[in-house]
Amino acid sequence: MNNIHKYSYRVDKSIRQQKFGHLSPVIWFTGLSGSGKSTLANALEARLFELGYKTYVLDGDNVRMGLNKDLGFSDNDRKENIRRISEVANLFSDSGTLTLTAFISPFIEDRQIARDIIGDSFIEIWVKADLKVCETRDPKGLYKKARIGEIKNFTGIDSPYQQPENPELIIETDKLDIEQSVDSIIDYLKQKNILN
Amino acid sequence: MNNIHKYSYRVDKSIRQQKFGHLSPVIWFTGLSGSGKSTLANALEARLFELGYKTYVLDGDNVRMGLNKDLGFSDNDRKENIRRISEVANLFSDSGTLTLTAFISPFIEDRQIARDIIGDSFIEIWVKADLKVCETRDPKGLYKKARIGEIKNFTGIDSPYQQPENPELIIETDKLDIEQSVDSIIDYLKQKNILN
Repeated sequence: MNNIHKYSYRVDKSIRQQKFGHLSPVIWFTGLSGSGKSTLANALEARLFELGYKTYVLDGDNVRMGLNKDLGFSDNDRKENIRRISEVANLFSDSGTLTLTAFISPFIEDRQIARDIIGDSFIEIWVKADLKVCETRDPKGLYKKARIGEIKNFTGIDSPYQQPENPELIIETDKLDIEQSVDSIIDYLKQKNILN
Repeated sequence: MNNIHKYSYRVDKSIRQQKFGHLSPVIWFTGLSGSGKSTLANALEARLFELGYKTYVLDGDNVRMGLNKDLGFSDNDRKENIRRISEVANLFSDSGTLTLTAFISPFIEDRQIARDIIGDSFIEIWVKADLKVCETRDPKGLYKKARIGEIKNFTGIDSPYQQPENPELIIETDKLDIEQSVDSIIDYLKQKNILN
């Protein structure tokens, strides 16, 4: 192996960002079940992907049944759930991908761990809607089950949601529709020179 | 939220592959410590990145200190290590990224789990070099420590390496230099229409 030195450099984050022509932040959506995190993440991704950004969404659909299928909903498992998601989001960010995550992530301490792992690339967006509104939407019928005790430790019912104290952005989905919400996020990211 | 339907589609794997202009397999390097997995993965990535592929390498450098820092080297922890790496590699593949992994992954059963998780996108490359050669290279001084018992469960010394029975490709790094090895892999991938 005479030529090891020739190829031993790694393609690093800044080289990728330069090639792809954009930064690779982690846009972390937090909020109650039914607040619109996943819908918003997917809508924002679709818009950015169309604009030529390299993007990816981590959410319950692709994480809970795979990487984190060994985890339940105890406080410890929720913490480990968020830790792993943070590490994976950080790898995607390192790969030059503009990364979106959509998880309730109800605890301040866990979101702080995410911020610590991801560093300057971390952008917290609180997807805010009244519990009553979320419960009326109840897209998966989960609130109904939680109210009659079929689901335990459900955020907003018998497990707390700790509101973000200093999120980068708040999107009130009981006041804005999806298109307006996406516009608000894009405006914010442009203003901060995170988008081109 | 009147417009949910408008944006509710997900950008999926095939849409990404179409946009990026290439497939997104997981190229899984397996082999002894010192066989050249990481060097080879990074050299191949550098070549493909130059050619315009969206690529990423998962290896000890970015996984063991992050996502899997809670895991040791017992058989169970090795199994969980490979399971998580497989799930993350599968997410990267889903994101349209041509993904390379460089882990000893000594057990047939665990590599089969990786193959099951990743499916048709899985390409196993056995990075083959004689134990004696690997031990002479010993880039991190690990064999020396294993021989005097400072490291336990070291693959090739007091823990087995189960040779791949049906890998997609074998690269003999005690016979080829890095450049030839990369050429061989690229030839194979082109022949199988995995690269353009």
